[in-house]
Amino acid sequence: MVDQVFVDDTIKKLIEKYRVIWAIGHAQALMGWDSETYMPREGAKERSVARAELSVLSQQLVLRPELVELLEEAKKKVDSLNPYEKGVVRVLDRAVTQLKKLPPEHVYEYTKVTGEAVHVWVEAKQKSDFSKFKPYLEKIVDLARKTAEYLGYEKHPYNALLDIYEEGLTIDDMDRVFDAIIPHSKKVLEKVLSDGYYPSQHPLEKVSYDREKMEKVNKEILDLLGFPWDRARLDVSPHPFTVNMGVKDVRITTRYEGINFKHTIYSVIHEFGHALYELQVDEKLAMTPIAGGVSLGVHESQSRFWENIVGRSMPFVTLMKPILDKYLDFTREYSAEEIYRYVNTVRPSLIRVEADEVTYNFHIYLRYEIEKKLITGELNVDEVPVEWNNMMEKLLGIRPRNDAEGVLQDIHWSHGTIGYFPTYTLGNVIAAQIKQTIESKEKLEELLSQGTEGITRLKDELRKLVHMWGSTYPPKELIKIATGEEVNPEYFNQYLSSKYLK
Amino acid sequence: MVDQVFVDDTIKKLIEKYRVIWAIGHAQALMGWDSETYMPREGAKERSVARAELSVLSQQLVLRPELVELLEEAKKKVDSLNPYEKGVVRVLDRAVTQLKKLPPEHVYEYTKVTGEAVHVWVEAKQKSDFSKFKPYLEKIVDLARKTAEYLGYEKHPYNALLDIYEEGLTIDDMDRVFDAIIPHSKKVLEKVLSDGYYPSQHPLEKVSYDREKMEKVNKEILDLLGFPWDRARLDVSPHPFTVNMGVKDVRITTRYEGINFKHTIYSVIHEFGHALYELQVDEKLAMTPIAGGVSLGVHESQSRFWENIVGRSMPFVTLMKPILDKYLDFTREYSAEEIYRYVNTVRPSLIRVEADEVTYNFHIYLRYEIEKKLITGELNVDEVPVEWNNMMEKLLGIRPRNDAEGVLQDIHWSHGTIGYFPTYTLGNVIAAQIKQTIESKEKLEELLSQGTEGITRLKDELRKLVHMWGSTYPPKELIKIATGEEVNPEYFNQYLSSKYLK
Repeated sequence: MVDQVFVDDTIKKLIEKYRVIWAIGHAQALMGWDSETYMPREGAKERSVARAELSVLSQQLVLRPELVELLEEAKKKVDSLNPYEKGVVRVLDRAVTQLKKLPPEHVYEYTKVTGEAVHVWVEAKQKSDFSKFKPYLEKIVDLARKTAEYLGYEKHPYNALLDIYEEGLTIDDMDRVFDAIIPHSKKVLEKVLSDGYYPSQHPLEKVSYDREKMEKVNKEILDLLGFPWDRARLDVSPHPFTVNMGVKDVRITTRYEGINFKHTIYSVIHEFGHALYELQVDEKLAMTPIAGGVSLGVHESQSRFWENIVGRSMPFVTLMKPILDKYLDFTREYSAEEIYRYVNTVRPSLIRVEADEVTYNFHIYLRYEIEKKLITGELNVDEVPVEWNNMMEKLLGIRPRNDAEGVLQDIHWSHGTIGYFPTYTLGNVIAAQIKQTIESKEKLEELLSQGTEGITRLKDELRKLVHMWGSTYPPKELIKIATGEEVNPEYFNQYLSSKYLK
Repeated sequence: MVDQVFVDDTIKKLIEKYRVIWAIGHAQALMGWDSETYMPREGAKERSVARAELSVLSQQLVLRPELVELLEEAKKKVDSLNPYEKGVVRVLDRAVTQLKKLPPEHVYEYTKVTGEAVHVWVEAKQKSDFSKFKPYLEKIVDLARKTAEYLGYEKHPYNALLDIYEEGLTIDDMDRVFDAIIPHSKKVLEKVLSDGYYPSQHPLEKVSYDREKMEKVNKEILDLLGFPWDRARLDVSPHPFTVNMGVKDVRITTRYEGINFKHTIYSVIHEFGHALYELQVDEKLAMTPIAGGVSLGVHESQSRFWENIVGRSMPFVTLMKPILDKYLDFTREYSAEEIYRYVNTVRPSLIRVEADEVTYNFHIYLRYEIEKKLITGELNVDEVPVEWNNMMEKLLGIRPRNDAEGVLQDIHWSHGTIGYFPTYTLGNVIAAQIKQTIESKEKLEELLSQGTEGITRLKDELRKLVHMWGSTYPPKELIKIATGEEVNPEYFNQYLSSKYLK
């Protein structure tokens, strides 16, 4: 680590010009958090106007001539810059290039259509009626195609969309990942189902809990993980999420359904993983273009690392067991191993967000294949529900009984975010690869069995490997620096094998 | 009320250009609220950078040539505009004029000095040592003098400062107010102290309460007042305040000291009065320059109306009594009249924020006289503590034992807000004048004795008299329209007489 992170004068000026854009991002993050947590219901309309106004303003500020000129100046001498400075240039250049390529009318149309589509999707899902959502999905696919054309791409238009969410990600990358993990996951699933150690159902799934007690459980689990309460919060929202206002203010949420307590606990651990990434970014990068996590895939690798690889391991369940028993009467009659089996049930299921780690990637693969074909026109929107159900049957041997269980289950398409889903699988794969890297020094089981001290060491490892860099390196380069090789799906297969085939 | 509030094309364009400034204000309001309620402690530094960046940005956007040009265009045809449109022109013109007159270096210096001064004041107050704060107060007085010079004034530099917080307010106005109310308040105080009905101490002041129970009391009092929970919130902060994100999102806070429960209850009712003003602004004015309350004095009139004139009246205490008794064991043994006496204790005291309605304005008068003399140089900063103590002794017959009880008690000067205090007394006076207007139709006692229905009618009266107009009219004009005459301190005297001299 260099002592002075930013030394070049042009970069220093760029960062100064950028600060107001960061400030708008800070305000937007807070408005987003507040909208989901504490905002009075009727405040929604004024809030949405405020957010839209500030989005447009932020884009205008990115394209200010004085910022663009400084950026051009910096690009000319990019070879002489240090990695942090190069990161600043790369991230800003990406923003400027994207904004310049997308015509304002297109952005406006996209915002308008997706703004309406979300409400239509909610209703269509409630009524389990794809025909209601169909005209909007058609418009959204059309807009996504146009986005790809505006942004430009090599080989396949879907590459342009992938790159929005994961810098540099291509179909070739994702095909390689799915080709490696889908067949192996099938084998693992068959073995698990025939073997029976990991149950497909568990009696604890039906047990109700008291919300106040569960809030205490979640708080103590975060204490166990060393959640820094002076820089972070846990609140409640309809859909769990993580948001960061800066490196010293990162907030997560969970929800309480009142039954099947693993859901709330593992959503907390998942969001903790996201939060830790932001909390461990080097302070020196605060308020600069490279202050945040670098991509959705790398972010998801951190949340899934903590949720699955750490959280659903036997040593972690053992650490967690006394906390459960302290507040929940009904866990006391179960052994730690039995709790371990409960949090690791495996079964083919229809709903992605409820899927276990063996079957989860099938859900992503299905969406990935459909999205690719939608963008090229190989598949029409009205063919999607049947294609969805056929693929689900082929992959997991079960068939949705209706659209709500199938094509309408996710909100993503109504947000217009086509190209986003693959980052979930990428995250799972990177998480396993990072586990492998960490274990070259010390086995995770050993680390975790040391409790707080081991967890602290693990966090420090992740900090040094990934977190502290923020967006300094593009995701592919970061993974190579952190793990010594490119994204390699074999580590995910090895992880599943070692957990489920032994 | 005209059907179409904004019809002129120039005004419509102005409002459209203004919307992004409103959006920044919305975000600033939320950031302010969050900083005092939920923000993790360590987030303070990044938050203060974000707020400073957005302040500067907002000022730049006010001075955008395209906005200033539209404003000049509108000013040319101002006589043909309707009152709302005139209000838009007036409010924006005030903002543009002030920003143009104050050099950026001056604003920067002011922000820097007051930013440091607050911390110095905290320490000086803790140590009760004025000498620590003195150099900062000297700088602040100097900056205030410069502000007055930059802004310009007639007769007295303090007039320029008064106008910042209360459009059009002058020393002549405030002298007239104090000349009328100070001698009369002295008489009332003497009578109250000799008479004994309103006690100077009450045993309930020493009683501790359970916080959770008191939260329920406050919630039910707000229910009684018809607090619209779908557009408003109550939270907890170190210092109670009201903030509005828009006409449909207004938030108040209170604090719980654990003892002397009238403090938390009357802070809630006080902030309710502020909130009601913002909540009852005509929806059609939302997101425009005239969407909010017009001035500090008019705002304070609304909070004091509810806190004192309504909240500390016998009929309201009677309405509140069952709520107290429902949750607080210790009020059950007292009659409603005894609770009334408890919430209306009167005594000369040293601390402004704890003062009763008879002695409160003495505290403001003292600060007003000192501020005026500081600005002209008649008084030096190092003479202030002795001047303060002398005046306190002359006005209330008691003398601070130290600086913390005297000159250091308020945060305001460290914020640089010289000229702000008089709006508190102005608020008290206007509140009594509005009471008088309302009572030309129906006695407040009768209204309140009808419970919810009467409170609803009272809120509707205030809406029509004051709230719905937002900042359409300047404060002096608004009071004249609402009450039929200029600010008249005699109504305050009459109010005190009828309550305390009967």
